[in-house]
Amino acid sequence: MSLSTYIAACEKVLIDAGLKTALHSYGTNIEGEWDAVFAAVKRCHELVHEMGAPRITTTIKLGTRTDRDQTMEDKVKSVREKM
Amino acid sequence: MSLSTYIAACEKVLIDAGLKTALHSYGTNIEGEWDAVFAAVKRCHELVHEMGAPRITTTIKLGTRTDRDQTMEDKVKSVREKM
Amino acid sequence: MSLSTYIAACEKVLIDAGLKTALHSYGTNIEGEWDAVFAAVKRCHELVHEMGAPRITTTIKLGTRTDRDQTMEDKVKSVREKM
Amino acid sequence: MSLSTYIAACEKVLIDAGLKTALHSYGTNIEGEWDAVFAAVKRCHELVHEMGAPRITTTIKLGTRTDRDQTMEDKVKSVREKM
Repeated sequence: MSLSTYIAACEKVLIDAGLKTALHSYGTNIEGEWDAVFAAVKRCHELVHEMGAPRITTTIKLGTRTDRDQTMEDKVKSVREKM
Repeated sequence: MSLSTYIAACEKVLIDAGLKTALHSYGTNIEGEWDAVFAAVKRCHELVHEMGAPRITTTIKLGTRTDRDQTMEDKVKSVREKM
Repeated sequence: MSLSTYIAACEKVLIDAGLKTALHSYGTNIEGEWDAVFAAVKRCHELVHEMGAPRITTTIKLGTRTDRDQTMEDKVKSVREKM
Repeated sequence: MSLSTYIAACEKVLIDAGLKTALHSYGTNIEGEWDAVFAAVKRCHELVHEMGAPRITTTIKLGTRTDRDQTMEDKVKSVREKM
């Protein structure tokens, strides 16, 4: 089974969880509240194990901020305005 | 405030949560069940915000496996035996 | 200075190096040969230091493969076809 | 072939390159100059491909600082003093 089959299954998990996501070439951005995000990531690991993979490694780069609300689109816009 | 002050506070959170941890030079290894680990990581983010940092970025490399139990020590031993 | 100012400067470095890049909400994808990619990433660190930041942390998730050529677009397409 | 066989081979590459390294349970810390470190990491990827793995993913968290010298041991000590 190719990696993309597992990734596609995880994308569905994230979408079914009602999370805002954006698939890119080497990962998926997720925007949401902590508990909802990590419950969905846990479900992804469970599902990929159920699909037959005995070992899974995931890299998560996660950010939280308390100074203001900022969407995924805001982040890209903020960089583009300065280029 | 230096970064090490925040890291020390997080180490205490992880230890108080009863998790098995190992501080190294550029991160901390944590061994435990999913929910316990991520509840503690969430508490770390909350605490560092409470200490005054408005923005936090954390990189987590996480692994799960269903084929067998393997401790943090087992992982290092497994590599050393082959060197 | 906001983080986005540093990121915008790095985007320019990567583009000036002739690399194929794609900015997303929490990082930048880069496609290219090893030496060209890492020379540009090194230049980004040097530049951000020159701009005044004394400490920089970067997370790089990097993949190499020998079985076939695959572009950044191929990777996303491969997942989307299975969703 | 188990993952630890590949990791052991990479440890040897890093040591043969004269780099200061510290294997831990979920990665290896490397201390050194930029060019020496990344030349060795490139050699690791080449070797693991030569050993038969067609696809490799590596996560690197890297830090550079211009304000002062700090060893791997200094970093751990700095945290422990505050605990």
